[in-house]
Formats: sequence, structure tokens, C-alpha cells
Amino acid sequence: MKFFMPTKLYQESDCVARHSAEIAALGSRALIVTGRHSAKANGAYADVCQALDRAKIAHVLFDEVEQNPSIETVMKARDFGVENGVDFVIGIGGGSPLDAAKAIALMIKHQDQDRSYLYQKGADSSTLPIVEVPTTCGTGSEVTPVSVLTIHAEKTKGSIPHKIFADYALIDGKYLKSAPASVLHNTAIDALAHLWEALINIDADDYTHMCVAEGLRVWKRSKAVLLGERQATDEDFANLMNASSLAGMSIAQVGTTVPHGLSYPVTYNQHMPHGKAVGYFQAGYLAEADAADREEALTLAGFDSVDDYQNFYEALCGSDKLADADLEYAVDVLAGKPDKLKKVPYTCDREVLRRIAFYTK
Amino acid sequence: MKFFMPTKLYQESDCVARHSAEIAALGSRALIVTGRHSAKANGAYADVCQALDRAKIAHVLFDEVEQNPSIETVMKARDFGVENGVDFVIGIGGGSPLDAAKAIALMIKHQDQDRSYLYQKGADSSTLPIVEVPTTCGTGSEVTPVSVLTIHAEKTKGSIPHKIFADYALIDGKYLKSAPASVLHNTAIDALAHLWEALINIDADDYTHMCVAEGLRVWKRSKAVLLGERQATDEDFANLMNASSLAGMSIAQVGTTVPHGLSYPVTYNQHMPHGKAVGYFQAGYLAEADAADREEALTLAGFDSVDDYQNFYEALCGSDKLADADLEYAVDVLAGKPDKLKKVPYTCDREVLRRIAFYTK
Repeated sequence: MKFFMPTKLYQESDCVARHSAEIAALGSRALIVTGRHSAKANGAYADVCQALDRAKIAHVLFDEVEQNPSIETVMKARDFGVENGVDFVIGIGGGSPLDAAKAIALMIKHQDQDRSYLYQKGADSSTLPIVEVPTTCGTGSEVTPVSVLTIHAEKTKGSIPHKIFADYALIDGKYLKSAPASVLHNTAIDALAHLWEALINIDADDYTHMCVAEGLRVWKRSKAVLLGERQATDEDFANLMNASSLAGMSIAQVGTTVPHGLSYPVTYNQHMPHGKAVGYFQAGYLAEADAADREEALTLAGFDSVDDYQNFYEALCGSDKLADADLEYAVDVLAGKPDKLKKVPYTCDREVLRRIAFYTK
Repeated sequence: MKFFMPTKLYQESDCVARHSAEIAALGSRALIVTGRHSAKANGAYADVCQALDRAKIAHVLFDEVEQNPSIETVMKARDFGVENGVDFVIGIGGGSPLDAAKAIALMIKHQDQDRSYLYQKGADSSTLPIVEVPTTCGTGSEVTPVSVLTIHAEKTKGSIPHKIFADYALIDGKYLKSAPASVLHNTAIDALAHLWEALINIDADDYTHMCVAEGLRVWKRSKAVLLGERQATDEDFANLMNASSLAGMSIAQVGTTVPHGLSYPVTYNQHMPHGKAVGYFQAGYLAEADAADREEALTLAGFDSVDDYQNFYEALCGSDKLADADLEYAVDVLAGKPDKLKKVPYTCDREVLRRIAFYTK
């Protein structure tokens, strides 16, 4: 068994302002990494600027991180950071800017290296100091060592082999207030997927169970909100954020499995949002699992059955089905990735993979 | 809310041998810190030596850490480490050597400072790299930032203000095999005390709950073994160790409260073992708690009632009672420590403290 999650996590109202002194101690010039719009719209970028300004720490902004960030974007941000002489990195946003921030902090630290360094196994993974400020409730990237980048040459996404934990995760539910319902829905489903894939995982142990059980306990508090049965309170937003971070701590221990593996080509080719795509395959993944695992996964999340989950998923993400050819392609891609398959705690050959992929059709 | 526990934890059979490369990467000459006997008797010292020898890392032994280690012992070990030019520290044992190892690693790093540095608030807390190898199942020191030392001048024990996490916690149940039953009993009760005092704690949040709930789930697996109802298996020893580490992770977040506070003068003056002393005050602490907190604490640990716990405690630690004067003294000492009292989530004035202290009389 093992446990490792060295990031210092704070979750509270006005979290960035409260911890400005700790941010400021990381360096003298920050590179802030965001997507194009949401970090400005939800107030997180302004909070970070204010905290840095108050501490008289200079900062520059790279706001060009796209959904499913590419290696090209990471290298462009690296060049921008190097030109500006930054000495730490602050990622703000959903998984895309947070994952990109880690890769950028790596590449600025190793600025004599070219893009191949990103995927170089066994290379030095030290980075500039990193702060992550999540503004969606799914990625968990603020507490995982994972950075998933899009590899256009392979028409898919893939984690870089470097394991990079942020120094600080500063978590504030208020950034969810302005998020569209679809973002809340997709990212909350992503968090659930992280929790279930960490639980039904060959490497799951008591320390993983710790994160998963608490994550599901917190996650299920928001189900009624996600279903639109009641208005979200500040506490709900905090719960959604904490569930996402606990889910991140879960996959930080053991990684994701088949549903994430199946989702990557679907996200790349069909442009399905990440959470919707990983949620698409959960019912099949549960259905194939051992009865005890399935029972625990469902019970901890407050679902009666696999169908109960599937109805919840469709209420949040819609009931559209992927085309057979796209599902076959996803199975083909994943069948060639033994690392992902060997994390499944039950026999998962090509036939089982197909059953998972086609379960809801 | 917050979570911080940066120590890299491994728990497995032959853990030290398996991670010798990671130990070896920490330095070139290790100071091994142990008590007088048990680290040799249970094989942990031999395992560490073998791992270091294989990696050609030099090592020297300081094996003079007493129960409830004193500042004097820490300073003696510091001088020994400095003389020998060590560059990292490995603690092996129960709470005493593990706590001492942290303080020693601090004082070697700051070798120009005198003993007052140990209790100097706000001073630099950086240390030499630290590995902790627990051989009892109570302290959790391998995953806490706490180092409790005996202050003879004040006739009590007290945590140093420096927060020091080990780099690695290497946890192997086999070191419990040769422990006397009394050590298993006292330390398992200490782990339970950590879990309950973290749960019934003004600072407890979802991240604390995560550690506590899992800790109690793992802890209760060994109750029959502790009661002598069945022989311990390797799995039981692993569970006892993991429960202790999960309990340590719990108090790493929020600290301990009244029962620990009451126990310190009792340990110092009546020489009652630490676990037995903290367990003595749990029934009273639960009895005074809010019903919901008490219910959750008992249920998660598999007890029906406060009496059920008390019977369990007495079966393990005996039913002898402390003298009234000693209890009054413990109440007097703790009544003067507002930091400990303000962690109690219910009103805890002098009268309540007395009721907790005298609950089982």
C-alpha cells in the first residue's frame, strides 16, 4: 500500500486572498496560466492578481490554453514564460489550464530542452513552484501528479510521464457560481468517474479507499442540486469542489482505468466533453465489475443500481449515443494500451472492453 | 478546510528492503535513531543496516532514546550526529525514537543553535532528510509533523512548535510480531485515541473525516486480536500498522485534544504508558461530547456504547484507577493550556474537564 499527495490543500471562502502570503513566498514573478475566458468571468484571475499585487509580486498572463491543451500550446507558454523571466506558475481553471500549468512549469525549469522532454521517461521532473486554482469541479488536477496533453500526431490525449504535484491547491467554491450548468454537470460526472475508477482498480488499497469513500460521501450531497431539484448554496459549491479534490486524491494514488481510456479518442474525434465521455462508459464498467465492488461503488454514491446511475447521467449529460464505428475505434485504441487495462481488477479482454463500450446501446 | 501530509508512505512486507534505493538517495551517511532494545529485537535495525549497506551508504547508531525522550537526549544525539558528519536521519521504533529523530534532524541542520531553538516559535523548521520506520502501532509519528519531548524543568511533555514531516514512512507489520502484548494494547489504544480526538475536534472537516473514518474502519478489524480472541495474522499486523498511520494522518490535520492533554502529567508523574493514559480519558471525553459525535465515534469503531469501549479498554490496559490527587493535578495543568482546550467542539470549562478526568471513578 502507499499514499503520497504532497500538495498543500486549502479550501475555504476567499481562499486565494487568505493565502496570498504563501503564494508570494514562492517567487518574484508569476506566470498565470488560464483558458481564454472563464478565469476572468468567474473572478479567479482578478483574485490572483489582487493577491499578487498586494504582495508586490509581478505577474504575466498566458490565457491561450484551449480545451484538451496541446503540446504546441505548452511550448508557446513556455517561451512566453522564459521571455518574461517568471519563477513560478499559477494555473487557474478546469483541467486544461491546470494540467498545462504543470507541463509549462516543467518546461520553463528545463528551458534548454525541446518538446520531446515532455514525454521523456525517467527524466528529471523538477519544476518551477506551482499553485493551482480550480474553477470547475471535476479535474482534481490541483492534487494529482497528472498532466494530460493532446498529441495531435497520434490523434488522442496522453498523460506525460512526469509526476508533478502542485505546491498549493487553493480551492474556493465561489468560482463555480458563474459556471454554466453543463460545466457543473460534466465535471461532477468526471469527479464521480475518478472516484469509481480508483475504487474499482487493481491497485486500490485502504489509502485509496480512504479518499474514495470520503469523496463519494461528499459528492452525493450535491446530487439534488445537479438534478436541478434545488438551488445550489455556497455549501453545495464547496462540496462539489471538495468532492472533486477528493476524487483527484484518489486517482493520484492509483490512476484511472477503462472508462477514461475509452473516452480519450471519443473526446478527440467526437469533441464530446471529457466528463460526459468518461461518464458514458461508467455503467458498462460497473456492470462488468465484481458484484461486491459494484455494490460498494453504487451504495457510497447513493445509487440503487447501474440503471439508477445511468438515468442520473442522462439527466445531466443527455442520452445521445455514440456511433458504433466510434465505439469500435475507442475499443481498438484502448486494446493496444496494456497499462490502462492491467489496472482493471477483473479480466478485461477485447470482448469485455466491447461490452463496456456498447453497454448503453 | 485543509489537507497536508507530504510524507511518502509505503506499507508492505519487507518495506525497508524494497525502498532501499529511495532511502539511499537521501544522503551519504545516515544517523539511525532508536531506543535501547526493540529495534534490534524486532529486526528493523538489521533491515535498515542491510538496506544501507547494500546501497553503500555509511551509517552510525544512536540507540539511547528513552521513553518520552528528553531535550537532553536530543542534544546528545545531535552532537553525536554532527561529530559523525551525518546528512540524513532514520528513526526506528515507537513514538519516542520517531519523535526524537525529527528533533535531532532539526538540530543537526541548525547546529549553530542551542537547545532553546527546539521551542523557538517562528524559527526555520528545515531539517536533514528523515525516514521513519515505526515498530509499534500507536504513535503515527511517521506521518505527523509532531515531535513531543519531555521538559524536565516543567515536569511534563510538550510538542515542539516546529512542524516536521518525514520524507518517507516505511511501514511493515512484521515489526509488531515480537512486540509484547502490552505494547500492542497500549499503542492500539493510542491510535484509537488519535482517531477519536481528531473526529471530536473543533477543526475536524471533511479531510479529517476522510482519515478518521478509514482509520476506524481499519482499526476495528483487529479488535478480536487485541482481545485475545484469535491469533494475529500477518494481515492483522499490517492492519494495526495502517490504522496507526491513518490515525497519525488524522492528528496531522487537527491535533489532539483533552485526553492527550490530561495524559501528559499522568505519564510524566505516574509513569503510565502513553496509550494507557490517553485511553483512560476517552470514555469521559465521549460522554461529554454531542450525541451525534459520540454516536459516530462509537459506531465507526464498532462499539455499542461508552461502556462497551470502557470494557474493551480495561480488558487491554487493566482497570486500575488513578488517584484523585493525580487527576486533580492533570486537570490543573490542562486548565492552563487554552490551545488544547479550544480544540474541543463543546464547552469545556474546568468543571467539564473534571468530569472527563473523573468519569471512570
